[in-house]
Amino acid sequence: MNLILFDKEKQRPDNTFSIIGEKADHIKKILKLKKGDFLKSGIKNGLLGKSKIISISDKEIIVKPLLDTKPPTPLDLILILALPRPKVARRLIYTATCLGIKKIYLIHSKRVEKSYWQSPYIGENEINRQIILGLEQSIDTIFPQVIKKRGFKPFTKDELPQILEQNRGYLLHPYSKEEMPKNPPNLPSAIIVGPEGGYIPYETQALINAGAHGFNMGQRILRVETSVVMAASRFV
Amino acid sequence: MNLILFDKEKQRPDNTFSIIGEKADHIKKILKLKKGDFLKSGIKNGLLGKSKIISISDKEIIVKPLLDTKPPTPLDLILILALPRPKVARRLIYTATCLGIKKIYLIHSKRVEKSYWQSPYIGENEINRQIILGLEQSIDTIFPQVIKKRGFKPFTKDELPQILEQNRGYLLHPYSKEEMPKNPPNLPSAIIVGPEGGYIPYETQALINAGAHGFNMGQRILRVETSVVMAASRFV
Repeated sequence: MNLILFDKEKQRPDNTFSIIGEKADHIKKILKLKKGDFLKSGIKNGLLGKSKIISISDKEIIVKPLLDTKPPTPLDLILILALPRPKVARRLIYTATCLGIKKIYLIHSKRVEKSYWQSPYIGENEINRQIILGLEQSIDTIFPQVIKKRGFKPFTKDELPQILEQNRGYLLHPYSKEEMPKNPPNLPSAIIVGPEGGYIPYETQALINAGAHGFNMGQRILRVETSVVMAASRFV
Repeated sequence: MNLILFDKEKQRPDNTFSIIGEKADHIKKILKLKKGDFLKSGIKNGLLGKSKIISISDKEIIVKPLLDTKPPTPLDLILILALPRPKVARRLIYTATCLGIKKIYLIHSKRVEKSYWQSPYIGENEINRQIILGLEQSIDTIFPQVIKKRGFKPFTKDELPQILEQNRGYLLHPYSKEEMPKNPPNLPSAIIVGPEGGYIPYETQALINAGAHGFNMGQRILRVETSVVMAASRFV
């Protein structure tokens, strides 16, 4: 935890915040902070800065925020991802948040098991938890949007063409002849990543028809998580 | 498993290999292969190709290898890593193998807990297992070397200067002013990654004295795993 994120709605009339539970324990036992010390802080979707510890008791820590810094620039990159195994999906939401990605589409594909969509790992609470962990790791405050699209056809037919009119679409596809550029043009972009085993030919064609271009990420077959971080690295 | 790796020493006099246990089950139940089918295969530190299934029984699968393809080009990149938490270290050996890295140094640092060095997760068997998983994922046969250096001072004083004479040393350091190049020169290189919390100032200086240069990977604070993949991506 490199940052503690507060919710504007929980700010008290005297402008302070109360910290309880695990986070309070972390501040006391791991960070070993005391009254008068400062704590790196931010407001959800707001400013960054520090908070001054006003009081520490067994039950709670009261802090007063002094926030004056803008969060880091969002990465101008959309992630469009065939829903991976729920455990992997959850970790990827965390990782994409750390990378500064602010829009994540989870889409269906032939090789996505339908049961994945029911998993609590991609339920609202868990997604929210992963986003907060990612922001607290990367020292950012801006929540990414996570959008689930359970219909591959309506998404690629009706929505994706519009998205790719405004964002260059890079479809990561191990068997594409063209290599993913090292230094892609500094334009709004989207990376499109398949399930383990890849999109089926019909889907690949639908993505290309919607405006995406296929690129490989080198000679090796990589797991989804590794591919996402590798591709995003070219835009950071 | 995109590949099955065989050990030359286990080849039988008629040139076939026997597959038993989990892998045999995977071939029968998941891949649903039958007698006469082919299986993507490789020999440890040797050629790639396919194997023909000669026979399938409850106990074992016998295959005959037909190997004629060179493994993918090794990535000309050394990874020098402060030993992370053993679970993370284990996953990183897998990931670095997938990326095509062929030399991994695990080194000590002030922020590395000494007990980590005793963990079975970084014992020879487990390292070997992760390497095989990584090669089978990425369709490669060449084993990386994993070298443990428990003395920070002797390593940075006596060995690292020589390594960095032959390899450009990129020290990933969140507070460096210079950004990690998008398209670094195509030369033998080494990336040097600290523990969570980073190398302490004395260590950073020792690494720089040994010939490394500090670079940041953008405005965000990333976990070790993410940093390694992001940095390696610039060399793939």
